[in-house]
Amino acid sequence: MSDTPVNPLPLLSTIDSPADVRRLSRSQLPQLADEVRSHVLDSVSKTGGHLSSNLGTVELTIALHYVYDTPRDRLVWDVGHQTYPHKILTGRRDAMSTLRQQGGISGFPRRDESEYDTFGTAHSSTSISAAHGMAMAARIKGESRRAVAIIGDGAMTAGMAFEALNNAGVAHGGLLGDVLVILNDNDMSISPPVGALNKYFTRLMSGKFYAAAREGAKSVLKHTPLYEFARRFEEHTKGMFVPGTIFEEFGFNYVGPIDGHDLDSLIPTLENLRDKKGPQFLHVVTRKGQGYKLAEADPVKYHGPTPFNPAEGIKPATTPPKKTFTQVFGDWLCDMAEADPKLVGITPAMREGSGMVEFHKRFPTRYYDVGIAEQHAVTFAAGLACEGLKPVVAIYSTFLQRGYDQLIHDVALQNLPVLFALDRAGLVGADGATHAGNYDIAFTRCIPNMSVLTPSDENECRRALYTGHLHNGPVTVRYPRGAGVGEPIAKEMVALPWGKGEMRRHSAQPQTHGDGAPRIAILAFGTLLYPALKAAEALDASVANMRFAKPLDTELVAELARTHDALVTIEDGCIMGGAGSAVMESLQAQGFSLPVLQLGLPDLYVEHGEPGKLMSQIGLDAAGIERSVRQRFLNVAEVRAVANK
Amino acid sequence: MSDTPVNPLPLLSTIDSPADVRRLSRSQLPQLADEVRSHVLDSVSKTGGHLSSNLGTVELTIALHYVYDTPRDRLVWDVGHQTYPHKILTGRRDAMSTLRQQGGISGFPRRDESEYDTFGTAHSSTSISAAHGMAMAARIKGESRRAVAIIGDGAMTAGMAFEALNNAGVAHGGLLGDVLVILNDNDMSISPPVGALNKYFTRLMSGKFYAAAREGAKSVLKHTPLYEFARRFEEHTKGMFVPGTIFEEFGFNYVGPIDGHDLDSLIPTLENLRDKKGPQFLHVVTRKGQGYKLAEADPVKYHGPTPFNPAEGIKPATTPPKKTFTQVFGDWLCDMAEADPKLVGITPAMREGSGMVEFHKRFPTRYYDVGIAEQHAVTFAAGLACEGLKPVVAIYSTFLQRGYDQLIHDVALQNLPVLFALDRAGLVGADGATHAGNYDIAFTRCIPNMSVLTPSDENECRRALYTGHLHNGPVTVRYPRGAGVGEPIAKEMVALPWGKGEMRRHSAQPQTHGDGAPRIAILAFGTLLYPALKAAEALDASVANMRFAKPLDTELVAELARTHDALVTIEDGCIMGGAGSAVMESLQAQGFSLPVLQLGLPDLYVEHGEPGKLMSQIGLDAAGIERSVRQRFLNVAEVRAVANK
Repeated sequence: MSDTPVNPLPLLSTIDSPADVRRLSRSQLPQLADEVRSHVLDSVSKTGGHLSSNLGTVELTIALHYVYDTPRDRLVWDVGHQTYPHKILTGRRDAMSTLRQQGGISGFPRRDESEYDTFGTAHSSTSISAAHGMAMAARIKGESRRAVAIIGDGAMTAGMAFEALNNAGVAHGGLLGDVLVILNDNDMSISPPVGALNKYFTRLMSGKFYAAAREGAKSVLKHTPLYEFARRFEEHTKGMFVPGTIFEEFGFNYVGPIDGHDLDSLIPTLENLRDKKGPQFLHVVTRKGQGYKLAEADPVKYHGPTPFNPAEGIKPATTPPKKTFTQVFGDWLCDMAEADPKLVGITPAMREGSGMVEFHKRFPTRYYDVGIAEQHAVTFAAGLACEGLKPVVAIYSTFLQRGYDQLIHDVALQNLPVLFALDRAGLVGADGATHAGNYDIAFTRCIPNMSVLTPSDENECRRALYTGHLHNGPVTVRYPRGAGVGEPIAKEMVALPWGKGEMRRHSAQPQTHGDGAPRIAILAFGTLLYPALKAAEALDASVANMRFAKPLDTELVAELARTHDALVTIEDGCIMGGAGSAVMESLQAQGFSLPVLQLGLPDLYVEHGEPGKLMSQIGLDAAGIERSVRQRFLNVAEVRAVANK
Repeated sequence: MSDTPVNPLPLLSTIDSPADVRRLSRSQLPQLADEVRSHVLDSVSKTGGHLSSNLGTVELTIALHYVYDTPRDRLVWDVGHQTYPHKILTGRRDAMSTLRQQGGISGFPRRDESEYDTFGTAHSSTSISAAHGMAMAARIKGESRRAVAIIGDGAMTAGMAFEALNNAGVAHGGLLGDVLVILNDNDMSISPPVGALNKYFTRLMSGKFYAAAREGAKSVLKHTPLYEFARRFEEHTKGMFVPGTIFEEFGFNYVGPIDGHDLDSLIPTLENLRDKKGPQFLHVVTRKGQGYKLAEADPVKYHGPTPFNPAEGIKPATTPPKKTFTQVFGDWLCDMAEADPKLVGITPAMREGSGMVEFHKRFPTRYYDVGIAEQHAVTFAAGLACEGLKPVVAIYSTFLQRGYDQLIHDVALQNLPVLFALDRAGLVGADGATHAGNYDIAFTRCIPNMSVLTPSDENECRRALYTGHLHNGPVTVRYPRGAGVGEPIAKEMVALPWGKGEMRRHSAQPQTHGDGAPRIAILAFGTLLYPALKAAEALDASVANMRFAKPLDTELVAELARTHDALVTIEDGCIMGGAGSAVMESLQAQGFSLPVLQLGLPDLYVEHGEPGKLMSQIGLDAAGIERSVRQRFLNVAEVRAVANK
């Protein structure tokens, strides 16, 4: 053993910014790629995070920073979970050890984290719109900077990407943006790819390097190793028609497909595209998990692992973890589909994340993965519901935002029985603010005909889903990421009494009407019922499990108002316009004016971190609830003053 | 003159349902078309409504009902404002005199109006998703019914349409839906068409009837007059390459373009398509305004006229009407663009409706009509804002629902200075519930970093827009359809004090603390300030013009709570989660528990009708406000009881 430790990253450790990359010779870049890949694998295996996608973008990232004058030129990474190589090359090599941890760097690009992160992403398919905006801004301002959007084949299925292509390919007011769209085609979104577009990409790839023979591509490829190949290929195909592509119909100059792991293809092609005016489209083929055999073999498994030993790979969990709400949903979906042939399950590209693998296997003709297409998912469900079927749309709270108009206009207005299973409601932990499921209670309950169910534990979640399925109108059932308290799940499905909460604890305090320590009732919506119950022990407060944010149990609200001096509402959703506000609206509508403390998610973006820790920091664990209630109400004088006002 | 009046619609008057159409001979259909067209023109000229688009769909509608077994087969009309011929043929011929009037038939298809209206539409681009849902439902249920989506070229630019094409063209779980998508290509959405797709359609049309020569189309056209044409055409083009279309790449069998006013093309083509399995695509070319010369010449002018004399055409208004909020915005936009070269104006296909015609003319390089593409509009604006420009997105309240995720994820999370000018906030009148701008206060104020301004009149609207433009973060400024009170507009722009309301009336009543007639303060958000002021005279109430729903003027709220016995909030937005709820949240957060009456839009869908009448019916005119306040608070005993609780 030597006394001097061997530097495992001799080249990478000298790279503190893309300018350092650009100082390297072309021949050094393969080594840099090896070291970046090694550092990605090493750090993700320690911190957890996205792996397969980042192993797939190593060469592309190096080539982009090598060719483009970043940050002056703008790189916009679609989805952004493939930006670890980009982070490593832009001054965050060592910060990778803090990835997705509280106070550490984000798993996505963020404008406030680095000047190289020109646009924050996380939800898919925004990059072309943003890059087009940047390119047009350069034209308007008379600057020559370039904008590049890097977008995966999965993200390309979202309508938003097409809206952007439809605009970026043509001139506005005589101006045409210098935007390059790079299709990073790895034949996979998080779930296996679906839809006609995917088949189309496969067809394009089946003629790999074929388009290189085309006139437009030839000039780009001049002085590249591909050029000779293209020239010879053209001789073979003389007189043969080479089809245009969809992207050319949209006004782009299409080049590709080229090998996205071959720096000798990437760099000259990008150099040529960089110097072209107007909208360019480069089709790059990469492999998720590239360079790490286990991830290449099973990129889904290695999409977003928790820490593991890279030498051994991901081991199956030894003790089965507590059932997650996602699994509770997946089990319910299969059981319900078994019982009701009218049930149809729909997911916008989240088969694994939403717990629908088993359902897909068992009920293939009633399973619809529509791709990253939330708008279509919702209205497609509405169409099914018109014909008497019972669609269940499994969608994360944050992604329902993408189908909001369709929820209002196509489902709720027509009062169609579509059940929305909203996973990842509330704070989501490591994914951070972009994926926060904070807003859905506020943005769904304001819609007429909607019902909003907030189960508090696993068994109640199953019952809520069943209740929603039976209801003849639109319903959301929201539940958080991860596991609940571990409540045993009854196989038999029993519907919840519609629009009714239940008392879970009765305070022994007398009602004071402001003359002593007040008698307090906590109205809990969702899983915060359990910390609320714990706090209530210390406070001797009553506790209601409200179950429904809409229709609200207004009788229970009135009863609690009549029998208590003050109320506390609690929910894992935004305070503004949330379930607590529903309680206050109901109190006032019924003529009650008593003190109410609203607990929930504050009006700010809560960053990534461990969910339990985050909840504790914003005061939504048992201790925090107790503290907030004491602060607000157990100053008796204040309560009396308020109550007498 | 004869004693027996001549029946102007001898054939149409015998048609009470599509079954009657199907009993006619082919040779009678041109006469039916003439009479339907005449009835459309006659009735729309009396009631107002959509004209150009309906004159364009007469033959297509007749052909569809003639060929398909409606209502067993499903017709889904995209947008739906072109369904007057459909309404006329499906039992609503005489009801056309009640079109868009309260209690009368809707201007859009509605499931609760007719079994022939299989899917309610109004917002664009939903039809393929819905029809695909219906087609798949038929496959799942083992029924042989067909589903047809009829969609305009403008609506095809929305991403949602592409999401649907991407799904409808391929099999799911081994099942492929029997769906026909008819592209009704009239080279116009409400505004002139934009984007690459439009250019593409133009290219397809430049080879009009050209695709008829193709193999796929030939079998469809066999036995039709086009067949011979196609056969001969093919001889001419022998050896020439006929390109596939985008729609074929998506898995559809593409047929067309054919003349959508020629029943002898339409009927045999539809008959052949009807009997084909799997996804079919028919490209039909029609002319907006067809058959009425004035509308053909200026389809935009005749898009949605108020009543007029068909012999004379639409006359220019003799006395200039009061300035609408739309015009106030349009004027401000030009003035602001003049002063600030960083301003960029964006509209999703609503140049006329949003008052941007003049801005387009004067600032062509800073005007962006992105087509019906709200998602892209919002994120494109975010991209511009990243580069230091100041984008103004002019968008109806109801259409911002389409860009909701982009508002949260791309604009607000990054705290980018994008100004949203929300026209048509609140009830919209004749367009009805589908276009209601009821929800925006609730769904925007729950987003961190958002500011929500609610100007009360024309001059304040201009000031609010200016204030929003100066603000370094995302802002919505919401204003209703039509004119306000006619407040004179100061040319000079003066910003509103940020986050501050203003007192407009002080009650002379003493504060009672529950012992007499209570001293009441009305907190008004938006244009309902004026009826509130009127009601306040009768009630001797204080009135605050709150101006900001977010950030709320919490100091003013506290001051009003301290100096009054009860508060009333009023807004032309939904009560649930709206500005009134913001007031209640603030009161409780500051420790005030006094009676609050929340006035606003109720939790139901308000149907189409004259806005003033509707507002009066839901109690939001001066008399209604006074009545509600008296009912709630001027029963002194009740107030005392509440206040003492």
